[in-house]
Amino acid sequence: PSSKLPDFGASIFSVMSGLANEYKAINLSQGFPDFNCPESLMQLVTKYMHAGFNQYAPMAGMPQLREKISLKTERMYGYRPNPDTEVTVTTGATEALNAAITAMVKPGDEVVILEPSYDSYVPVIRLCGGSPIYVPLALPDFHVDWGLVKRRLSSRTRLIIINTPHNPTGAVMTKEDMDRLANLIDGTDIMVVSDEVYEHMVFDDKQHYSALQQPLLRERSFVISSFGKTYHTTGWKVGYAVAPPPLTNELRKMHQYITFCTATPFQLALADFMEEEAHYLNLPNFYQAKRDLFYDLLRNSRFEASPSSGTYFQLVKYDKVSDAYDLDFARHLTKEVGVAAIPVSAFYHDKTDHKYLRFCFAKSEDTLRAAGEKLAVL
Amino acid sequence: PSSKLPDFGASIFSVMSGLANEYKAINLSQGFPDFNCPESLMQLVTKYMHAGFNQYAPMAGMPQLREKISLKTERMYGYRPNPDTEVTVTTGATEALNAAITAMVKPGDEVVILEPSYDSYVPVIRLCGGSPIYVPLALPDFHVDWGLVKRRLSSRTRLIIINTPHNPTGAVMTKEDMDRLANLIDGTDIMVVSDEVYEHMVFDDKQHYSALQQPLLRERSFVISSFGKTYHTTGWKVGYAVAPPPLTNELRKMHQYITFCTATPFQLALADFMEEEAHYLNLPNFYQAKRDLFYDLLRNSRFEASPSSGTYFQLVKYDKVSDAYDLDFARHLTKEVGVAAIPVSAFYHDKTDHKYLRFCFAKSEDTLRAAGEKLAVL
Ligand SMILES: CSCCC(=O)C(=O)O
Ligand SMILES: CSCCC(=O)C(=O)O
Repeated sequence: PSSKLPDFGASIFSVMSGLANEYKAINLSQGFPDFNCPESLMQLVTKYMHAGFNQYAPMAGMPQLREKISLKTERMYGYRPNPDTEVTVTTGATEALNAAITAMVKPGDEVVILEPSYDSYVPVIRLCGGSPIYVPLALPDFHVDWGLVKRRLSSRTRLIIINTPHNPTGAVMTKEDMDRLANLIDGTDIMVVSDEVYEHMVFDDKQHYSALQQPLLRERSFVISSFGKTYHTTGWKVGYAVAPPPLTNELRKMHQYITFCTATPFQLALADFMEEEAHYLNLPNFYQAKRDLFYDLLRNSRFEASPSSGTYFQLVKYDKVSDAYDLDFARHLTKEVGVAAIPVSAFYHDKTDHKYLRFCFAKSEDTLRAAGEKLAVL
Repeated sequence: PSSKLPDFGASIFSVMSGLANEYKAINLSQGFPDFNCPESLMQLVTKYMHAGFNQYAPMAGMPQLREKISLKTERMYGYRPNPDTEVTVTTGATEALNAAITAMVKPGDEVVILEPSYDSYVPVIRLCGGSPIYVPLALPDFHVDWGLVKRRLSSRTRLIIINTPHNPTGAVMTKEDMDRLANLIDGTDIMVVSDEVYEHMVFDDKQHYSALQQPLLRERSFVISSFGKTYHTTGWKVGYAVAPPPLTNELRKMHQYITFCTATPFQLALADFMEEEAHYLNLPNFYQAKRDLFYDLLRNSRFEASPSSGTYFQLVKYDKVSDAYDLDFARHLTKEVGVAAIPVSAFYHDKTDHKYLRFCFAKSEDTLRAAGEKLAVL
């Protein structure tokens, strides 16, 4: 059959994790922790399974979990979404992104994408018959050039997708960024998807600024987050979307026919575990220590770590080590040096190569030290 | 925002389960067991969580689980799909259906739907810009009139969706049905989605006949099944699709951007548990006993149970009890009698009312007896 996505193959995350396994390399490519989730969180899953909570959850998510999401959102961002009409539990943030984009984008619509960008946005836009409009983030610190964004808007612009803290660069958007974005879409009917899955990983006493904190954006945005990132459970596939009632209504129509609902015992366990606010309140410190360790380790090498203000990723410039294309260099590093990373060109539609690799530092100290030693040799 | 699915609201399953909860009615509407999954299956989940398997699974599914699916398929249907190129684990059968339809249907394509039909097919077709072509199943036993199907095919037909054992009627397709279907699509490029999620629930010494057993269909079909149905874990959201390599390739492109992957500890637990073949080999007897019990209980009433050859559903004619529209009667039954069921008109695009309700008998003996007593009063 002819393909609806002829230009898309296995994602770079599958490719590099596969290569890492094949060559038994230290896998700092795909973003996931190499340590386990909290013991008591697993115990709650076991408890709820044995209590018989193994059947369908309500389509919008377990009420207990939606309530906790609402309370946490208020605590963090001063806005309390209505759990019944503004909060939807999804099967990972990936499904939330798919549902939000699919709900909004019609054939001929344009969607603004800031590059480098996460790989799942564009194929979903294409499947809806939409056109991605690529706007590069500005080097060296990958900030948004809002003037440039403004020049790329048109009467067909339907959606702007933002991502803060930003994968792969670690950049975080400020209040000023959100105000600029709000100004841009004021008086239009442009909507926003705000991918905030790393909301609890912002460093150096910076704060995550959510689209939910900007009054106009709050009325126009799907704000998407992930329990996988926050609770070290990327393999459980539980995420959520907060959006005003009319947008939530459309998102749920999609969710109903994508997965219908999300794993019940995980939802109940996460709802209880969310009461331990210390877990997510400590997350910045927890990951900042890892970031700093990896940064220090690289100082022994010819690799140059860029500042990472958020996420569990670190961009690293390798131009003093090699002038190879970043995908070739990433392959070489995996096979010959034993450390896997993601080539940043994979986040650009035209495969722009700025000589950056992305390393995931959501790893144990031992793993990071072992990787640092290998990289120091070069 | 204007809706991409203006005509779709909360599914009838959410509506009736909601009403059942509100009125504390016995819920025989939405299809899920009211008993728990096997103890040892839950213990396996706990084991794998504590062993640290809480991060992303490979996109196509855990290799262990794909291998077991392949072996089971061979045991049941004499065909052993290649686990690497023909088996994909999905986040429930709902996601597999979404991915298969989305992979195949382009704007302007036609998709044949046999009515009554499950509610998730049509919205996904519409989102792809396709047109459903409705063909009614033939009363009284809801068999496929292949002559009628043939007359509805056109040069734009892209896909035929079949479902056996059939929800909501309990009808099962025969080898002759599959041969007729194969003849119809031979020489065309029409593909098939075969929804076989109730494959392990076929009664009265009948056999499930899978599209995988028909050599031509096997080359053209996405065959979709569900661990939720077979292992009493509808709330875990694990399903799978078997399809020839070119179709699997396209399905995975969709899956990659829908959920990317499926819950890791559930996949590993199910892979181990599948070795207990007795579980699924006994399932026909297990559910036939429940069907027979419910059938007997209804003999004390003015309701008339239709023969159900498969699934865990039972159609019941209520025209001797009431001449109300089935949705109204289902609401009445929930509120006033205390038993919730699904009105079969919900499975027809034009809400055809044949005076049937669908009851789910995947319930404990106590639940079924309690429901039978309430229904006998009418
Ligand atoms: C779903 S696999 C990709 C994980 C991830 O978010 C990343 O590595 O960027
Ligand atoms: C996903 S809720 C619907 C469950 C079901 O398959 C049914 O009741 O028919």
